Amino acid sequence: MNIKANDPTLKSWVQVPENSDFPIQNLPFGIFSLDGDTPRVGVAIGSKIVDLKNLFELGYLEDTPFELADFDAAVLNPMMLRGKQATRTLRNRISELLNIENSELQNNPEEAKQIIVDMADAKMHLPVYIGDYTDFYSSEQHAYNVGCLFRDPKNALMPNWKHIPVGYHGRSSSIIVSGEPIHRPKGQKRPNPEEPPVFGTSNLLDFELEMAFVTYQGKPLGDHITTGEADEYIFGMCLFNDWSARDIQGWEYVPLGPFLGKNFASSVSPWIVTLDALEPFRVPGPLQDPKVLPYLEYEGDKHIAINLEMAIQPENSEATVVSDSNYKYMYWNMNQQLAHHTINGCNINCGDMMASGTISGPEEHEYGSMLEISWKGSKSVEMKDGSQRKFIQDNDTVIMKGYAKNDQVRIGFGEVNTKVLPAK
Amino acid sequence: MNIKANDPTLKSWVQVPENSDFPIQNLPFGIFSLDGDTPRVGVAIGSKIVDLKNLFELGYLEDTPFELADFDAAVLNPMMLRGKQATRTLRNRISELLNIENSELQNNPEEAKQIIVDMADAKMHLPVYIGDYTDFYSSEQHAYNVGCLFRDPKNALMPNWKHIPVGYHGRSSSIIVSGEPIHRPKGQKRPNPEEPPVFGTSNLLDFELEMAFVTYQGKPLGDHITTGEADEYIFGMCLFNDWSARDIQGWEYVPLGPFLGKNFASSVSPWIVTLDALEPFRVPGPLQDPKVLPYLEYEGDKHIAINLEMAIQPENSEATVVSDSNYKYMYWNMNQQLAHHTINGCNINCGDMMASGTISGPEEHEYGSMLEISWKGSKSVEMKDGSQRKFIQDNDTVIMKGYAKNDQVRIGFGEVNTKVLPAK
Repeated sequence: MNIKANDPTLKSWVQVPENSDFPIQNLPFGIFSLDGDTPRVGVAIGSKIVDLKNLFELGYLEDTPFELADFDAAVLNPMMLRGKQATRTLRNRISELLNIENSELQNNPEEAKQIIVDMADAKMHLPVYIGDYTDFYSSEQHAYNVGCLFRDPKNALMPNWKHIPVGYHGRSSSIIVSGEPIHRPKGQKRPNPEEPPVFGTSNLLDFELEMAFVTYQGKPLGDHITTGEADEYIFGMCLFNDWSARDIQGWEYVPLGPFLGKNFASSVSPWIVTLDALEPFRVPGPLQDPKVLPYLEYEGDKHIAINLEMAIQPENSEATVVSDSNYKYMYWNMNQQLAHHTINGCNINCGDMMASGTISGPEEHEYGSMLEISWKGSKSVEMKDGSQRKFIQDNDTVIMKGYAKNDQVRIGFGEVNTKVLPAK
Repeated sequence: MNIKANDPTLKSWVQVPENSDFPIQNLPFGIFSLDGDTPRVGVAIGSKIVDLKNLFELGYLEDTPFELADFDAAVLNPMMLRGKQATRTLRNRISELLNIENSELQNNPEEAKQIIVDMADAKMHLPVYIGDYTDFYSSEQHAYNVGCLFRDPKNALMPNWKHIPVGYHGRSSSIIVSGEPIHRPKGQKRPNPEEPPVFGTSNLLDFELEMAFVTYQGKPLGDHITTGEADEYIFGMCLFNDWSARDIQGWEYVPLGPFLGKNFASSVSPWIVTLDALEPFRVPGPLQDPKVLPYLEYEGDKHIAINLEMAIQPENSEATVVSDSNYKYMYWNMNQQLAHHTINGCNINCGDMMASGTISGPEEHEYGSMLEISWKGSKSVEMKDGSQRKFIQDNDTVIMKGYAKNDQVRIGFGEVNTKVLPAK
């Protein structure tokens, strides 16, 4: 596939700082607002945002299949409802307008001023209205670690794990965007298995380092999407911190799965990086043994190498990176997840979000949750300020970052940054 | 609480057939359309529907806090966003207009003709846009039966069951309205635990007899709703058939809960009966022993007696009732469910749907699923046409009905009626 906007030789007339997450080859979509203005669709470039509402109104998107309302919107869904060909055309057109060799907008500083705004002045919003949110459990190292911690290293993986991209439905209402703080949750837990449960604040608050993808409108109820078709139904990806209260989760989750241990919040990064922009970073996945059932087979490289890190920043102190992982460590890829999710006829809507599950690599420093890093609280991680962490403390800020990189280009995701306030 | 529209002595000038589900004391809300017209809000009375869009346009709702767009809508959410006091005022006003002692509309046959339409001519739609759907597991007999079938009668209930209204998130995109057929789902299952899983159509397709409630807009993320406040956040209830593919579910659900075994479809009845209309049918709940934690304690009668039945109708044959249950058999009531759901700060949006879980009574004929009725396929139920059922067969129509009744009035839910087509 030849996507014009991915050309690594492109340069923009908008200045892009070195090592920026947002070179002209990225062009991720988000929802932003400036003081006094309504939220609208924007595209990130360097430390700037392209205001697509103004870009449309000033006539620069005339040959694209969109209407003003698609960009003058508080979520990306109307734009995404136009489908993959449309958003690809749009990204290519924006790339063309920002190209240093193109004079249309570059030579019109009066209009450029209305269109290109400072990211520093913008407030970012949750980019998508999420109808349904699904969380998978697709990293083998994570599933293995959890199995070792709660069961037995010899039977760490459940019998179904290598046959099914195991997943469960989560709560979409409590997905929030980077920058919004959360309160430490309260709930029921049973710290002593010999005694009745108690009520109180969660003592074992954890992050989960995940990625999520966002879908286009799927097929009608009863139909399914194959692994070969899946790419056409995926708009893009963002960073995803799936907050978890391990003590609440541990007491509640048998037999119907996690509920209040998860649904108090999940935090996402504000920019959706298109699947198109990630194409240069495709890598082969692991050998899947035992062989998967035919509906889960796939062709080509469907995994993606994305460097991921999670850091904890104690109040009034520096951040300490506690996890370095990579999206390439997934056992099941997005195509398999989507094919599995729909094989029974389940329908997918525009804006649905599907998260990977915690992504842990084989090395200890690559584990994607404090549960694994502290090995269920049996050891601590030292912060730069000398304090110790087994789980997340009040007033800690947890910061996830991610980028894909090759010799020519770096496609970043920005960050998801969430402060944990004390329980209400 | 004195709700004017509940007065059992009221009579309507609109003729209501004897034993109708929809006397003037009910007035449930739904979304209907007539040939060539857009979907809009309606209220059921007898075998008629009151068209609220036309009622508003003709000036009959002037003193209510609504706008035309609240009724000229394809879902009830805009109307419900006005809040409980507003919808209560609306129901009282409609009751007043339909009262035989009120002449306003009764004596204006020209306008009445535009407002009162035949239910037989209307197509009913999914009444609510459901942002998030949660399924509880709150009937003790059901949880006990499942525990006996899959574990051990001596430890049938999980240790958490009497402490927590156990629940999990389900799929909102695949909730459909009565009348829409479903296809038998396909998926991965492991019929022989000694052999690898296989792919195929579900052979163990089941219904689950449930009720669901629909919420008003809740509090912001981080706050919680108490058992005492819960009534103010519940708009009304409907019948809910939670389709289940037992073979798919059995293989996938450990450890993260049901997923593809459930998310291919759930079917609801089209009329939302308001919680107000159900107030006369409040009954005490069971003694909860062990004592629940303080946040789950409640005052007053918060359970509701609603007769429920599920029938199977083989193709070209009569329906056979296979389950007679009652909503009063819930261990945990809606107030406790909502208090639990939000105790960690999880936010509830207008139109969220929360289902009860399968409602089974103590007698075998009161079991709410074929799993329990056939005792995991070990015995059959005879249909009126002589055929046998352990689970649901292709071309069966499954029909759920429900009503609350006392000496003076019968408040019904209509039905949810779903035909099972062969796998695609």
